[in-house]
Amino acid sequence: MTSPYWSDFVQGLHPYVPGEQPKVQDLIKLNTNENPYPPSPKVLQVINDEAINALRLYPDPSNSRLKQALAKHFALNEKQICLGNGSDEILAFAFQGLLKHSKPILFPDITYGFYTVYCGLYGIDYIELPLAEDFSINLADYQRDNGGVIFPNPNAPTGVGKSLDSIESLLKTNTNSVVIVDEAYVDFGSESAASLLESYPNLLVIQTLSKSRSLAGSRVGYALGHADLIEALERIKNSFNPYSIDRLAELAATASIEDVDYFNDCCQKIITTREWTVQQLQALGFDILPSMTNFVMAKPNSISAEALFTQLREHKILVRYFQKPRIEEYLRISIGTDKEMQALVTAIKSIL
Amino acid sequence: MTSPYWSDFVQGLHPYVPGEQPKVQDLIKLNTNENPYPPSPKVLQVINDEAINALRLYPDPSNSRLKQALAKHFALNEKQICLGNGSDEILAFAFQGLLKHSKPILFPDITYGFYTVYCGLYGIDYIELPLAEDFSINLADYQRDNGGVIFPNPNAPTGVGKSLDSIESLLKTNTNSVVIVDEAYVDFGSESAASLLESYPNLLVIQTLSKSRSLAGSRVGYALGHADLIEALERIKNSFNPYSIDRLAELAATASIEDVDYFNDCCQKIITTREWTVQQLQALGFDILPSMTNFVMAKPNSISAEALFTQLREHKILVRYFQKPRIEEYLRISIGTDKEMQALVTAIKSIL
Repeated sequence: MTSPYWSDFVQGLHPYVPGEQPKVQDLIKLNTNENPYPPSPKVLQVINDEAINALRLYPDPSNSRLKQALAKHFALNEKQICLGNGSDEILAFAFQGLLKHSKPILFPDITYGFYTVYCGLYGIDYIELPLAEDFSINLADYQRDNGGVIFPNPNAPTGVGKSLDSIESLLKTNTNSVVIVDEAYVDFGSESAASLLESYPNLLVIQTLSKSRSLAGSRVGYALGHADLIEALERIKNSFNPYSIDRLAELAATASIEDVDYFNDCCQKIITTREWTVQQLQALGFDILPSMTNFVMAKPNSISAEALFTQLREHKILVRYFQKPRIEEYLRISIGTDKEMQALVTAIKSIL
Repeated sequence: MTSPYWSDFVQGLHPYVPGEQPKVQDLIKLNTNENPYPPSPKVLQVINDEAINALRLYPDPSNSRLKQALAKHFALNEKQICLGNGSDEILAFAFQGLLKHSKPILFPDITYGFYTVYCGLYGIDYIELPLAEDFSINLADYQRDNGGVIFPNPNAPTGVGKSLDSIESLLKTNTNSVVIVDEAYVDFGSESAASLLESYPNLLVIQTLSKSRSLAGSRVGYALGHADLIEALERIKNSFNPYSIDRLAELAATASIEDVDYFNDCCQKIITTREWTVQQLQALGFDILPSMTNFVMAKPNSISAEALFTQLREHKILVRYFQKPRIEEYLRISIGTDKEMQALVTAIKSIL
């Protein structure tokens, strides 16, 4: 469809299709990589009646409290941090403000589905570079002329991570364009490139509170980088919607960042449950990609992934299936609680 | 400043400068048109521990509950509603998706400062049409070839409103482009153009919960219009950041929309306080523009507006001063509680 009232580009837009948010009750939901544990108990304390009544007031457009907490956490200064309404908003700003150049940008052919959507929205040329046979990103392929590089580490939906050394090797030679490391899943066992920020002024690291911080429902993400890169993001943010992080989201995010112990405990529990799940599925004949995230990509050997997806749904277990070459033989399964993963294994046994 | 890593347009961006959000305590804050009353008590009930623990989950990307409440409130269907992170995000989508054409768009020369910022962000040509002598928008001036029309009703920062008849006259002849009525302040005594939506498929009405609903801190706004116009906004939203309304914001907004009595009471209290304030300031020699909003534009006759702004700040009262031709003789004063407005009048008496 189209309409004479639309701006020209609207007709050609191909919006992102998020994972299903089912309205059915009693479903075990392992399809959108949410954290099975609630946010830090400190979040319950800060969202009190006083904070709710203060909703009559605008948020602090600089979100100083949250920036201070993050600056302390990462030993950066506040000018090296830009906050957004989820890391999706930050990614959008970064595509528009740092990746739109005459040369095409580079990212993996199997990766976060939103990257091509942003390219469509902002008219950015791109080249998708194939993952290696083992589903890892081969950063040597990125050593070519480009308008920018972006990849998740660990990658999604594969779960496979890159070492910090290999990322630094790319940064050493790729100095003419921005390199964005999208670290949505970094807290489940891999190393953040934030430690490289001091040495590489073209590095931008993007993180979210949606996974490891159990705040998917609060919509808070952030970019860390050289103040010049952050300035570009802030200019766009302040030309678009300066107050995009609401008052309660800022309170929740700040409390969460400050509660280091709870964060570490939750991440460790998920890693332990992931390792148990991998062993169980391997024992059932699944091929599992090495995961450094809160999900596993699992390929059944005696049933198609699509059929298993459908039958798990009948058992009221929802996982994610991508109808896409190479990964269509896999299911992406988020790591839930031990009990949820036991239910998954039991259901798979009964299906097989 | 600039950086070789920036996309070309970033250097030319002129971000919006929001009203000050002071960190000083004990200030009477009458500078950003916030509501002096807290949100509906129903909001306190819905943001409970269960809702906070559920922050681990993503929001419903279609925000069905809130859309249903709005659909009921306005007797529309859900396909006629697009939700955004504040009406600023909705305005941004509308500029990008409905106002970007080869012809220039039209808006008043004295109006919401963000309109020119969006034109800069999206590369949209515009013509600013002067307000009449009495600071009203002369809609006859808008009867000319254009790529779209946008104006606030009532206008900000003047507070002056247009009748529904005059808006319908424009819609009757201007059928080739979209007409956007930005109704941030409509609930304080003027009529919404929502009643015209059935007859004019090129009309988009934008409202916010930041003023009359006391939810500036929650960031929720919405557009009402023909399903074709809404489809353009949804495509952009879903190509940008599908989950921009967080879980608690959706709960708060839904509770607020459903609590009609509290809403009506608050609006009526603010109107009554506004009328009292106008009388008091007129008695002190101020010229006041006829306000249909929760603020008044007031011109002192024995001191410059700028000097009065500065001296009020010394009395710990913050109002808004715009250094802009024609309105630089005025102060924009948000309507607070009766007590706050009494303190304002007392302070002005002591200054004069």
